[in-house]
Amino acid sequence: MHILVTNDDGVTAPGLLALAQEMRTLGRVTVLAPDRNWSASGHVKTMERPLRVRETKLADGTPALTSDGAPSDCVALALLGVVKEPVDLVVSGINPNANLGHDVTYSGTVTAAMEAVIAGVSGIAFSLDSPEKHGELDYGPAARMAAKVAARAVKEGWPGNVVLNVNIPYMKDGEFKGVMITRQGLRVYRDELVARQDPRGRNYYWIGGEVPTGVNEQGTDFGALAAGYVSVTPLQLDLTAYNAIDTLQQWKWD
Amino acid sequence: MHILVTNDDGVTAPGLLALAQEMRTLGRVTVLAPDRNWSASGHVKTMERPLRVRETKLADGTPALTSDGAPSDCVALALLGVVKEPVDLVVSGINPNANLGHDVTYSGTVTAAMEAVIAGVSGIAFSLDSPEKHGELDYGPAARMAAKVAARAVKEGWPGNVVLNVNIPYMKDGEFKGVMITRQGLRVYRDELVARQDPRGRNYYWIGGEVPTGVNEQGTDFGALAAGYVSVTPLQLDLTAYNAIDTLQQWKWD
Repeated sequence: MHILVTNDDGVTAPGLLALAQEMRTLGRVTVLAPDRNWSASGHVKTMERPLRVRETKLADGTPALTSDGAPSDCVALALLGVVKEPVDLVVSGINPNANLGHDVTYSGTVTAAMEAVIAGVSGIAFSLDSPEKHGELDYGPAARMAAKVAARAVKEGWPGNVVLNVNIPYMKDGEFKGVMITRQGLRVYRDELVARQDPRGRNYYWIGGEVPTGVNEQGTDFGALAAGYVSVTPLQLDLTAYNAIDTLQQWKWD
Repeated sequence: MHILVTNDDGVTAPGLLALAQEMRTLGRVTVLAPDRNWSASGHVKTMERPLRVRETKLADGTPALTSDGAPSDCVALALLGVVKEPVDLVVSGINPNANLGHDVTYSGTVTAAMEAVIAGVSGIAFSLDSPEKHGELDYGPAARMAAKVAARAVKEGWPGNVVLNVNIPYMKDGEFKGVMITRQGLRVYRDELVARQDPRGRNYYWIGGEVPTGVNEQGTDFGALAAGYVSVTPLQLDLTAYNAIDTLQQWKWD
């Protein structure tokens, strides 16, 4: 199995290194990841400028590729031929924060996995539900759990048009309660406008506010993490609100 | 009714002007749109840098606001308080190209409307299915159709967690067959890697290839446009692949 590893925090991120190392227990690994942080960048396809790809090394000395494109660009470049050997699985992460509820469309980690699925290759996104305040994160237990989930998923198989969005609680090996298959929960954003003035007296704005929370409901990604489980949410690229179609079809048009 | 108008092509785009002008027949309009083109930029939340907002004018002399943020940032800024008066409806567009099938997660036009819905405000995205080769586009008929759809939608109401993704065929007034409520169809991307060398002999890559096509199936956004109808697709922010949950729950974990 040939596994492409990418992320949205950049090729030097410790979460990527941990994921790449554990993925090597499952197959041959190629890394192609952004040369900088693309957090909350969404699903990008860069068409108005050319993209560079250069060789680099991860902190463990293994070779990697890096690009000035977005996470989804890195996946597109690899699958369109920058990586010569066919790719069987794309994994993205490990993101240092959870990607839950409505986060999934903003998330570079998740949209990289979406890009794989659009190109017809299996894609899994991995994120760590790290505590709000923490020192240096230990990605080891999450990476081992990611390899376990990926191995199981590949062995059992899953629908080709589905992205797996995996969120892993911040725990030590052996503390995980298990793996739960979940639905997307409800994110509660607490964004606030922070208006400031620059030294020349002109306004500027930060999108600030507190870290978003979520509705801790059973069966959701939030619920699983709160209970100490790894959350695996199957995501589809068909966003049609089928429940709303009947309502809209009642509309009267002149 | 107070309507916020934005887009992903920038505040000077003719599609935005046409939409803002027609929306004035339905209520009071505020424009807050990006200061540059953000096509295929996806769903962005800019948190690592502050955003500017400045006053400008549309080509018809009416006041507008513009920001260096992404389309979804413009919506967030407006709804978080840069625009003082409460907003009842956010409309985004008119995009010069259709946003169909899997395009919706890449689309700045659609993700701007998603941002509104996440903030609890109704959101509609408008895109024009313009011919591949064309001179200067006439947005007039599409803008009048957009106002008709928005007026009907507001009058009838629709579920609050649903984004309306409206695609309008490139036709003259009176040629439209009607409005069809659709599901998201299947996009067929035809991206190709175009590898070149710079004057210093180093490789660079374009994501090139032909314009994507779609599967022209009845009941889909593609099918409606092909038949000369305006396509209205209700989109939800819950991407859970509910059909896949049962399959995944059969997986055996040690």
